[in-house]
Amino acid sequence: MQIIIYIKSKISNGEWTIGSPIPSQRMLAKMFNVNRSTVITALDELMADGLVTGIPGKGTVVTNNTWTLMGKEAMANWGDSVSKGIHEASMSTVQKINDAESDSGLIQLSKGELSPNIFPLEQMKLIMREVSEQLEPFGYEEPKGNPSLREAVSNYLENRGMKVSPSSILIVSGALQALHLISIGLLQKGADVMLEQPSYLYSLSVFQSAGMNLCGLPMDREGLKPEALKQMNEHGKNVLYTIPSFHNPTGVLMTNNRRMQIIKACEHERLPIIEDDVYRDLWIDTPPPLPLKTMDRHGNVLYLGSLSKSLSPGLRIGWLVGPEAVIARLADLKMQSDYGSSSLSQQVAAKWLSSGAYDTHIESVRKELRERRNIVLKYLEKHLGQFADWDIPAGGFFIRVRLRPEFRVGKLFQKAYASGVLLNPGSIYAERDGQYFRISFAYDALNRLEEGIQRIGMLVRS
Amino acid sequence: MQIIIYIKSKISNGEWTIGSPIPSQRMLAKMFNVNRSTVITALDELMADGLVTGIPGKGTVVTNNTWTLMGKEAMANWGDSVSKGIHEASMSTVQKINDAESDSGLIQLSKGELSPNIFPLEQMKLIMREVSEQLEPFGYEEPKGNPSLREAVSNYLENRGMKVSPSSILIVSGALQALHLISIGLLQKGADVMLEQPSYLYSLSVFQSAGMNLCGLPMDREGLKPEALKQMNEHGKNVLYTIPSFHNPTGVLMTNNRRMQIIKACEHERLPIIEDDVYRDLWIDTPPPLPLKTMDRHGNVLYLGSLSKSLSPGLRIGWLVGPEAVIARLADLKMQSDYGSSSLSQQVAAKWLSSGAYDTHIESVRKELRERRNIVLKYLEKHLGQFADWDIPAGGFFIRVRLRPEFRVGKLFQKAYASGVLLNPGSIYAERDGQYFRISFAYDALNRLEEGIQRIGMLVRS
Repeated sequence: MQIIIYIKSKISNGEWTIGSPIPSQRMLAKMFNVNRSTVITALDELMADGLVTGIPGKGTVVTNNTWTLMGKEAMANWGDSVSKGIHEASMSTVQKINDAESDSGLIQLSKGELSPNIFPLEQMKLIMREVSEQLEPFGYEEPKGNPSLREAVSNYLENRGMKVSPSSILIVSGALQALHLISIGLLQKGADVMLEQPSYLYSLSVFQSAGMNLCGLPMDREGLKPEALKQMNEHGKNVLYTIPSFHNPTGVLMTNNRRMQIIKACEHERLPIIEDDVYRDLWIDTPPPLPLKTMDRHGNVLYLGSLSKSLSPGLRIGWLVGPEAVIARLADLKMQSDYGSSSLSQQVAAKWLSSGAYDTHIESVRKELRERRNIVLKYLEKHLGQFADWDIPAGGFFIRVRLRPEFRVGKLFQKAYASGVLLNPGSIYAERDGQYFRISFAYDALNRLEEGIQRIGMLVRS
Repeated sequence: MQIIIYIKSKISNGEWTIGSPIPSQRMLAKMFNVNRSTVITALDELMADGLVTGIPGKGTVVTNNTWTLMGKEAMANWGDSVSKGIHEASMSTVQKINDAESDSGLIQLSKGELSPNIFPLEQMKLIMREVSEQLEPFGYEEPKGNPSLREAVSNYLENRGMKVSPSSILIVSGALQALHLISIGLLQKGADVMLEQPSYLYSLSVFQSAGMNLCGLPMDREGLKPEALKQMNEHGKNVLYTIPSFHNPTGVLMTNNRRMQIIKACEHERLPIIEDDVYRDLWIDTPPPLPLKTMDRHGNVLYLGSLSKSLSPGLRIGWLVGPEAVIARLADLKMQSDYGSSSLSQQVAAKWLSSGAYDTHIESVRKELRERRNIVLKYLEKHLGQFADWDIPAGGFFIRVRLRPEFRVGKLFQKAYASGVLLNPGSIYAERDGQYFRISFAYDALNRLEEGIQRIGMLVRS
């Protein structure tokens, strides 16, 4: 493995170009202090991957293969368009964090997921058994998704103040897929996607990959500032992306008054809205104001919801709500890209929502989140109170911590990582000010959360 | 089409604003010198697009909203790139067939799916129960997919002559998603996708939507002709898409000899290959020759498999096999578009493959398909023997029927549809010769299959 990684990195770095000979088997054996047979095994695998070839009389040379080559060029362009919108360094930090999030050895102050301890295992087993007992032969689902699930989502939304018929709902494999479909199906290349700055969206490349630019707008404790939207859609092709409830990463809850202002400003600018409302159910103190979508009388808002944050991301079930014609088009596009979401997942999700099990579950999630938030706020006070401040989030998973200006978050991130603690520096969300980091109180066990915060405190102190 | 383009341009120019009435049907008929029924057809399409609405007492008015407007322009581009590659008329036939396939009143000679009668309902229930009993809290899966499923797919492929490690396998939501990822992640705009003509791929728009062209090559009873590949990759950005086993729609099984020739020709042209092998397990007489992928020593072949044809499309589980570097890239891209496939579906699929239940199931599918094929061949002989001929497929779902030149398939499709029978005219697969249609012996009940074929016979006779 070491030999393979070594050679691959040489090739991908561009250090060893196509046609260049690689070190002899003898030399590699010596370098890695292994038998020649081990070297041969490694070379065989590289040959199978098409990266190197044995050429009689010349030894083993870097060849590369058509797919790798092709991919390299295509991905280089891909990378270009990504880096246009986002600082290169923060993307590699995102990559590092994504990889590190599956490292169970690390203390996860990073992960924006519910703790496995909150996973409703027994209820999930029960629902799967029920679904299996009532199972009928199943094949492709309808383009907009399983009818019972859309019905259940329609009722779910009605309980949250939104009256939409099942035909205005598209089932998607998570909110990210909805954004992907919007990016390839509705927006034009070169369009500006307005959004809160900072925003979680900066850590994704879904819009930039499709050729759109992100254009950050200022926010305050009431949410996005409506003044910022003035004349932001002169060419009629831009769009606003917003997370009004328990915004990621700031935790800000947009006030009702602000929501009305935003709707009005967008109507005036003819600026359509993508409302990402995946944290809605995770309120801790009081329910959030009604969604923007409920104030929308012109079909201006596309609304995203999901079970990923409140139940499990492994189901890959979310929904997109909008004008029927738009939903029909995006459904068509979804069929063109994956022929719909898993029927099993859709059936299980429908059962969760329609049986009332989801409502019971989300009650206990809120209780658990309240407890976790309150305890973690105490840990923060105890270990970081001298060095940092933060607002108290009224819901969601996250606390956004601001370090005092004499400390540097970039350095803290590196040192915390080295000492086994993963946190998210604000830079990956395009924080204007380098003093912020985000921690999640939802995922890791409480004792580990304290351990992690304590270590951060010690690092800052030292 | 002229009427639609005229009205759309008026709206997108801003000449006709929201709420404004459009000219009366009578006037439009006069303007374009057509029947009123033609005007009505055009208006229906605009209504379906959400651009206009009939309002009692006011006639037809422009409705529209920002998303629709935006979508219209984007989708117009989308449509453009689709129509470049495919005849407009055949795309609307595809649409019509897709819609009609969910009409249970029709006799389905069209549907390329296993009959619900073949669905292994009891075994599926059993496996879901087992999965639920062994369930652990689950969240996002690894980028390449659930490790147990990749392990199971690796063993499955080894039993089919292909040695690949789980790290060279990407789990996808069906083979179509693999094509979508390849189109957006590996191929360049303007690249030519070589393929058999006719091909199922002509009825999809996955490559054309991403800016590639389809370039049909001749085939015979042994499969694609290797001579046709000569100098087909001068700019090094093209790719070959092929269905070597039980090709859709022709049913042709590429011989072993031909496979070796294709691999050699592609190596020579440095033309990478997408091998779509989703029908492999559906052999009826004898197992097919080994996949192209097993003859590939240069990582030239990306290999697609799926459970959609042999078990159920509702699971949305397929796999893509290729050089590890390419798989890693496509995995990354999949994460960017939907954060991976449903964990439940993946766990269920893993259990099917690893428990041996899949092998037992596929044996009985083969037996059923053999029976269905043989009976349907008799029906064809009885009702269409005088008017048509066909080859006997050695596997898969389909028989490709060639009507004698004095009859017209386009007309037959219309009349059959009107009399309640759905079949697939060769035009949607870009058959060069207008005499072919495709029927599936896998889906509808046997008595309905005979009824359908009998009606076709009567239509031809009359």
